Amino acid sequence: MPRHKGDHDARRRDVSAAVWRVLVARGFGGLTLRAVATEMGATTGLITHYFPSKKDLLAHALTVLDEHRATRPRRTAPECPAPPEGLPALRAALMETLPLTREAVADSRIWVSSWDAALADPSLTSGHGARYARSRERIRHHVRAAQLRGELPASDPDETAAVVQSFVLGLVVQALFSAEELPAARQIRLLDGFLATLASAAGGP
Amino acid sequence: MPRHKGDHDARRRDVSAAVWRVLVARGFGGLTLRAVATEMGATTGLITHYFPSKKDLLAHALTVLDEHRATRPRRTAPECPAPPEGLPALRAALMETLPLTREAVADSRIWVSSWDAALADPSLTSGHGARYARSRERIRHHVRAAQLRGELPASDPDETAAVVQSFVLGLVVQALFSAEELPAARQIRLLDGFLATLASAAGGP
Repeated sequence: MPRHKGDHDARRRDVSAAVWRVLVARGFGGLTLRAVATEMGATTGLITHYFPSKKDLLAHALTVLDEHRATRPRRTAPECPAPPEGLPALRAALMETLPLTREAVADSRIWVSSWDAALADPSLTSGHGARYARSRERIRHHVRAAQLRGELPASDPDETAAVVQSFVLGLVVQALFSAEELPAARQIRLLDGFLATLASAAGGP
Repeated sequence: MPRHKGDHDARRRDVSAAVWRVLVARGFGGLTLRAVATEMGATTGLITHYFPSKKDLLAHALTVLDEHRATRPRRTAPECPAPPEGLPALRAALMETLPLTREAVADSRIWVSSWDAALADPSLTSGHGARYARSRERIRHHVRAAQLRGELPASDPDETAAVVQSFVLGLVVQALFSAEELPAARQIRLLDGFLATLASAAGGP
């Protein structure tokens, strides 16, 4: 790899790390070109070289957030011989989304803080819309598998996936605002109660 | 009423109206003392007289949002002879929360945009936490009534209320980001499917 490319990649990683630190400290509301520059000990001009506008910076921050979530250590035990399938896989995926650990709370906090900025710009809005559509698709896959295994009643898996994603997103929001009322143990109890409700329901069209 | 008091109230209403217009146009991310002053054609100094700090302004904006929601015309037909009870009352309350109309979309948009600012300040965080706790309490009341009427299976109404509120909050968020995928008709279908799931489930402890 030519030296130039390596330098560029290293600098890009530095910028991404600085963006992440600003997000953790201040949320999206505090993410500015100046804040990233200060965090890096660089000039605002240098940051502008990477992000010509605030919108470019926000778009990059969302990518950083995606990457961070993708690389976060899973809660699933590493010694687990095979990944779960069906309903247990659905439960495991939803557990990853809930703010059950200190790190997951920080992640959720940043995601929720991104919604204001994302709603203020049509292209960021559709980007977030696409993220949640992909998430519903992953949930749908688990719902369908659980139905085939007889763990969930027959229903339109798209509808069930949208209901499941609604439940988990709304629980994230409430847990952030009411940390004392909704500690990890209660979040898990609510999740398991919700899944038991789905499993015992009559099913749908 | 002495003239002074009337003037003060009128000015307070002017300020509240300006705060509302800024929220509609820019969300909480764009709510600044300067923006409110510009909206009123007043000096920033005058606004500072009402709100010494940004935090005071945010707290007032949340109050304005509460008032606006409380006074928004209900979807329930005015000729309806008696307010619904039990499961129909629960459904009606949830319908009011969903972004089913243009005005409700604007309201939801502002609420979601308030979460970043509210999470950045502990007293605003607990204020939002209290709002959602009151909302869960209202839902719990309807759930309990529906159980007594035999419309929902027996379960801990606190747990069911938390699940219901999670579902509706998460659906609001997804509908804002995926307006095309989740138009009003589909939101209502998801709500009715979710309520049918609750009604047909085995119930819980």
